[in-house]
Amino acid sequence: MSEASLPTHAKDNPNVSADGAPSKNALKKQQKEAEKAAKKEAAKKADAEKRAAQQSQESEDTAKDKYGDLPDDTVQITHLKKLSEEDVDKEVTVITRIHNSRSQSAKLAFLTLRQQGKTIQAVVAATGDAVSRQMVKWATGVNVNSFVRVTGLVKKPAAPIASASISNLELHVTKIYLIAQAAETIPMQVKDAERPPPAVESEGQVDSEGAPIVTLKTRLDNRVIDLQTECNQAIFTISSAVEGLFEEYMRKSGSRKFNTPKLLGAATEGGSGVFEVNNYFGKSGFLAQSPQLHKQMLIAGDCEKVFEIGPFTGLDFEQVFDNHYHEVLEFAEKLIVFIVQELDARYKDEIAVVHKYFPRAGDFKIKDGKALRLKYFDGIQILKDAGVDTTEQDNLVTDLTTAQEKRLGQLIREKYDTDFYVLDEFPMSVRPFYTKKHPTDSRLSNSYDFFMRGEEIMSGAQRVNEAAELEAAMRSKGLDPNADGFSDYVNAFRQGCRPHAGGGLGLNRIVMFFLGLDNIRQATPFPRDPQRLRP
Amino acid sequence: MSEASLPTHAKDNPNVSADGAPSKNALKKQQKEAEKAAKKEAAKKADAEKRAAQQSQESEDTAKDKYGDLPDDTVQITHLKKLSEEDVDKEVTVITRIHNSRSQSAKLAFLTLRQQGKTIQAVVAATGDAVSRQMVKWATGVNVNSFVRVTGLVKKPAAPIASASISNLELHVTKIYLIAQAAETIPMQVKDAERPPPAVESEGQVDSEGAPIVTLKTRLDNRVIDLQTECNQAIFTISSAVEGLFEEYMRKSGSRKFNTPKLLGAATEGGSGVFEVNNYFGKSGFLAQSPQLHKQMLIAGDCEKVFEIGPFTGLDFEQVFDNHYHEVLEFAEKLIVFIVQELDARYKDEIAVVHKYFPRAGDFKIKDGKALRLKYFDGIQILKDAGVDTTEQDNLVTDLTTAQEKRLGQLIREKYDTDFYVLDEFPMSVRPFYTKKHPTDSRLSNSYDFFMRGEEIMSGAQRVNEAAELEAAMRSKGLDPNADGFSDYVNAFRQGCRPHAGGGLGLNRIVMFFLGLDNIRQATPFPRDPQRLRP
Repeated sequence: MSEASLPTHAKDNPNVSADGAPSKNALKKQQKEAEKAAKKEAAKKADAEKRAAQQSQESEDTAKDKYGDLPDDTVQITHLKKLSEEDVDKEVTVITRIHNSRSQSAKLAFLTLRQQGKTIQAVVAATGDAVSRQMVKWATGVNVNSFVRVTGLVKKPAAPIASASISNLELHVTKIYLIAQAAETIPMQVKDAERPPPAVESEGQVDSEGAPIVTLKTRLDNRVIDLQTECNQAIFTISSAVEGLFEEYMRKSGSRKFNTPKLLGAATEGGSGVFEVNNYFGKSGFLAQSPQLHKQMLIAGDCEKVFEIGPFTGLDFEQVFDNHYHEVLEFAEKLIVFIVQELDARYKDEIAVVHKYFPRAGDFKIKDGKALRLKYFDGIQILKDAGVDTTEQDNLVTDLTTAQEKRLGQLIREKYDTDFYVLDEFPMSVRPFYTKKHPTDSRLSNSYDFFMRGEEIMSGAQRVNEAAELEAAMRSKGLDPNADGFSDYVNAFRQGCRPHAGGGLGLNRIVMFFLGLDNIRQATPFPRDPQRLRP
Repeated sequence: MSEASLPTHAKDNPNVSADGAPSKNALKKQQKEAEKAAKKEAAKKADAEKRAAQQSQESEDTAKDKYGDLPDDTVQITHLKKLSEEDVDKEVTVITRIHNSRSQSAKLAFLTLRQQGKTIQAVVAATGDAVSRQMVKWATGVNVNSFVRVTGLVKKPAAPIASASISNLELHVTKIYLIAQAAETIPMQVKDAERPPPAVESEGQVDSEGAPIVTLKTRLDNRVIDLQTECNQAIFTISSAVEGLFEEYMRKSGSRKFNTPKLLGAATEGGSGVFEVNNYFGKSGFLAQSPQLHKQMLIAGDCEKVFEIGPFTGLDFEQVFDNHYHEVLEFAEKLIVFIVQELDARYKDEIAVVHKYFPRAGDFKIKDGKALRLKYFDGIQILKDAGVDTTEQDNLVTDLTTAQEKRLGQLIREKYDTDFYVLDEFPMSVRPFYTKKHPTDSRLSNSYDFFMRGEEIMSGAQRVNEAAELEAAMRSKGLDPNADGFSDYVNAFRQGCRPHAGGGLGLNRIVMFFLGLDNIRQATPFPRDPQRLRP
């Protein structure tokens, strides 16, 4: 039944005795008073009997086995997300949190039950022996967010339930047991976290309806509660799916999954971003920042096609090609098209949930189901034509800035009606030492970047596959090919290695740009940044 | 054609002039000498003409475009492992290493070509204009292990080729080009690495046939070459498959893949094995040793079923259950059965290749396709019955030792005819603080270990899911629940968390014990240990 159609609670109407004013007719008065007294006595007696009956009922509690501590039994459990109109008039048992509870009267309470962000209304109504007033009272006394096991009849409400995400069904409770009690106080309410984040963040504000605005910092500090929202449940279903689709595509192509070392004997990628482990069995070790060198060593070890899903959620792949690196580039373009198309096909509901909270970016569009591939300098030309200063890029000094990339994304969306494009043939000067030079233009390289909504999601290239060429390339970038950590890598190419190419994709970046989230941390279950090492 | 059936090289038969002895009949003699001289002259002339023709042929080289540097063209490439008798008399092009080369004569050479451990014999025979002597000479001059692109006709040899793993086919070369040259010297020959490792390792020995024995250390120091062997190619196909089957099983069950943080603000697992990163943006960070705490925080965050494949190749999962932790235990038992059965079904050839090199352990056996589940103390009893001293285990002082586990594995194999068994209800004293106590026997816990061939491959348990119980358990193990790194974890259970259980599997251990390898490093592409941080 819908909340509006419920009977209102029958209020008690206590008999109140009224003192009469003195009367001329004493007899009549006496008689009346005697009658009144008798009535009063009768009323008192009736009242006492009623109370006694009520007390008797209370002490008996016709439903005492139907609520309270979880019994040691085994029952078939249904997931809230699997309930449908086919279950109407059937009894089901679910394990859910209490999202909200509201006592309407001693005989009636409304609970909102929540499982993985989905909510349903549950009615606890003491209308007969099956549900007692004590059971109603107990149900509303359970702290919000506690886990309960609820058995009830599935019913179709007269009108849709606006306050629950499952609006076409409700549960008429017949049993309710406590599984895990939540504390009375909660650092952040899930219902507050359910609202979309504000356009501009600022701590301690309330929105136009007076509800607290939960900032990203508060969410991340209380990430375990934040993860319980419908939107986050959908985001991490998509994130898991992106990894799964990447793996599915790779395995279909015959690629094998490898795990390369995360601890290295020497820092190979230099700079301040290298983390040193200072107590590796009496030695210094370094955290690998990418599997690049070992991926290529696997190729030199005849593994031909390899992929890895790294600890900092990088999706990496490397493979030999037969004739031209564009074979690998096309393979990677089709990978992104596959991921986007399969997300749209398999995760429609989850995408819709996320877009309720993050509506600004809109659906992700790939024109004609094909990547748009441009040469790097054709991209520069598009920017130039739009009046963007590209002097530094023309002079091969720097790569595109993030602002230029975003602008290019907008211009390409306007011109080509697509959110996914690829730039090929980057200048050699802005790429790492292991990048293969362009065969005819010495300024350029056989390298590419992928962009979603104008932001980079992948960088890749054909790699140098001969030791002498690699040594020269390293020296030209100021690196010593004989240094610890490099020598094994360079030596891998001395025994012959097939030409190969690959790339590294950012999982969280793909999730963020595909869904149009505001911040990369929203795509990470427990994000880390220079300020954050917890929770 | 088979090597044996080939025409032997036509040796030059130079005309040799013989001096005659003095004769009585001068005329006759003169005449004869004149005839001889004329013959000699004719032979000389013929010889000169032949040489001239040959020189002319050499300078022309009828096959000069058919070998040498790789041309800039695009051709259809076939993988060696896809060749079959259906390809006989067809021309194919492959990209392979030269595994071995042998010059039979100026007009004939035999190459063994290798791709991912598979080998085939290739014949380069200068029998007409299509293949020249120069081409034969060039082909045998390419360094062993170099990559070449070879086009040739597939032929069925008269007799099987014993020296190649593809014994029923050979390739009659029509074109051969160099893709990547290997150095002349190689630290370890692939053909030496192809032999099974010796039973007892010792550096610098030769085997009974005088061939060098390659030790594990030499193999690992030169892992890129070692990975090229047929056996290692098969091992890492299996390893990739175990990960894939784990993921396939998890996703089918509705579990989602997560990536938990690998850098923590505080060491939560204590002890000397924790690696500290001392320059995390001005702070100290610690490498996570297992995703245990964050897996459980995801469960508290309503993720219900999660899995992760960690950087140190741990396959982790955690999930809520409806009624009893044995639901999860059974789920995990079926996971192992699924992995083993699917490996047997899908990777028959690879398993056979590995068993050629590691024959000792034999096929992995799961009796009746079901896990054997024993209670921990029933396992102890089996050991006791066999005369093993289990005093320490009876007194709940220590877990089973590795030697006891192996012995138990043997006894179980004898008694139950299976290589996979599970021990349930371990003593609480030997399990970590987050383990749930047994509901009725306070000495025990709801925890389990999985064993393959008597060695542990998984440890798991139901976990404590209430904050107060967790705090007490931590204090009883001497841990402070309010310490940095623990407080976020404990707080996760204050807002209600469903009962859950899970486990962590060692990928490399599963691969090692399933295949019966000698050493865990053989199941790791680039192993790390206290002594080894390279390659």
